[in-house]
Amino acid sequence: MSLLIVGTMAFDALETPFGKVDRIIGGSATYAAWAASYFTKPINQVSIVGGDFPEEEMEALSARGVALEGVEIVPDEKSFFWSGRYHMDMNTRDTLVTDLNVLARFDPKIPESYQGSDYVMLGNLSPAVQISVLNQLRTRPKLVIMDTMNFWMDIAMDDLRKVLGMVDLLMVNDSEARQLSGEYSLVKAAKKIQAMGPKYLIIKKGEHGALLFYEGKIFSAPALPLEEVFDPTGAGDTFAGGFIGYLSHVDDISFESMKGAIIAGSAMASYCVEKFGPTKLKEISAQDISARVSEFISLANFEVKA
Amino acid sequence: MSLLIVGTMAFDALETPFGKVDRIIGGSATYAAWAASYFTKPINQVSIVGGDFPEEEMEALSARGVALEGVEIVPDEKSFFWSGRYHMDMNTRDTLVTDLNVLARFDPKIPESYQGSDYVMLGNLSPAVQISVLNQLRTRPKLVIMDTMNFWMDIAMDDLRKVLGMVDLLMVNDSEARQLSGEYSLVKAAKKIQAMGPKYLIIKKGEHGALLFYEGKIFSAPALPLEEVFDPTGAGDTFAGGFIGYLSHVDDISFESMKGAIIAGSAMASYCVEKFGPTKLKEISAQDISARVSEFISLANFEVKA
Repeated sequence: MSLLIVGTMAFDALETPFGKVDRIIGGSATYAAWAASYFTKPINQVSIVGGDFPEEEMEALSARGVALEGVEIVPDEKSFFWSGRYHMDMNTRDTLVTDLNVLARFDPKIPESYQGSDYVMLGNLSPAVQISVLNQLRTRPKLVIMDTMNFWMDIAMDDLRKVLGMVDLLMVNDSEARQLSGEYSLVKAAKKIQAMGPKYLIIKKGEHGALLFYEGKIFSAPALPLEEVFDPTGAGDTFAGGFIGYLSHVDDISFESMKGAIIAGSAMASYCVEKFGPTKLKEISAQDISARVSEFISLANFEVKA
Repeated sequence: MSLLIVGTMAFDALETPFGKVDRIIGGSATYAAWAASYFTKPINQVSIVGGDFPEEEMEALSARGVALEGVEIVPDEKSFFWSGRYHMDMNTRDTLVTDLNVLARFDPKIPESYQGSDYVMLGNLSPAVQISVLNQLRTRPKLVIMDTMNFWMDIAMDDLRKVLGMVDLLMVNDSEARQLSGEYSLVKAAKKIQAMGPKYLIIKKGEHGALLFYEGKIFSAPALPLEEVFDPTGAGDTFAGGFIGYLSHVDDISFESMKGAIIAGSAMASYCVEKFGPTKLKEISAQDISARVSEFISLANFEVKA
């Protein structure tokens, strides 16, 4: 099936306890497209970059089945740039620099050739941009998923509520779920968020895995226990890309399929964090992914005798 | 199989955001025996109480198949008393009062009738007491598991290392595993702790479930997402009791059995937290436990398509 991904394509500068990189490809749509490309094609990419964004990166994505007609290039400007430093626990980070550059004028136009996309992922962007994308789609996709962050809850709650009413699935981390709902218990938080619109809710808990809520049901996905996380940047976007790429591949949005999709997304994210930026995502094979999925199966599988 | 449990039998005063109770039965061996009694008998209880410990509680345990010959009663003294207040997140608590009372002189003598116990659980006690118990056992049990806490790491590390070298399985929470090993990554922490003696290690992560480490293998058990935790007191001891009770029942200490035991223990703990003290543990039926185990199966079960 066809998959539409909207998000950033950017440069990041990163500092982790394991090292430092000054300028590496980043952005939610970059990570998501790489991850999804192992499962489905075509991928209809929507983003904006400056004249500095490398041609090789575009060619590499294109070779993976990623259509780039929806990626606006502004030759005389710079791409979005983010710089951050991770703390020892790798769960908290300080933003050092955020240069919006071309992102400040991001007003995506969905190309005619992208109409009819079956699956849609709205990366973390201003809710107004997310709404604009959905309003341009002439046929309702089979599934629309979105990411967001606490920043939009702080400054654009009205728009955020509007887009929440238009999507099928929201994915946020645990602290964002608590902020959005005002509830500490994630079970209570899920009920309140589902009442805002999304039938499906995924709460990401980092090293503790993820929870999927749908109607009264819950699925608890483990995270792969890792000796070290080298660089967590992009793990959430990689998870989202693997998740929706898998769903687009199996073309089934039942609760059961979504469980498999969470494991697929988790497997991709577990690779992502092994090297700086999307480096590792570009190196793996389908066999590597199967092997990682098998690790999740052994990790979670159990039997209880009567 | 026969199960030996060593730990406290006590009174607790508890304050949670949901209510307050001035004096309720508590103690690690109390919770563990109630939980284990749903799976196995006989249970050989080793503890110490004062003259104030209620006869009805002893009778109720006895009716569940718990032998009390190893429970020393000191008529003119008081039972161990602990009082604590939980914070809103229910993960952190302040100790308000710790009156050791009879516990200060606890020097357990293992009755002759307890010799040959197949499974042994050493509740959280001074490592010296744990060592003394193991030294009194004439035949090596099939499995010895132990609990401990940060307090003993602070004040009795030498003895703690000694007892770690004598047991098969340690269960601690994540912050205790980090303190004991000096490693933040739980995978690295597990390797260091296993090198101290216990072949098996369970790291409890509260609302995030538990991890079991054995040789190179890891099992990640989910926790049941709960709307509210009414009172977390005793949840860890209940988990331990359900865990070893299940193992004693199936009489198999393979990695596969231990996975089932963790789910059994988690099911018992999920009941424990629903009411103050061990109240709920006394009310449930075998059917309730099966139903809760089934909830864990649906929660964790998934399939990934190729």
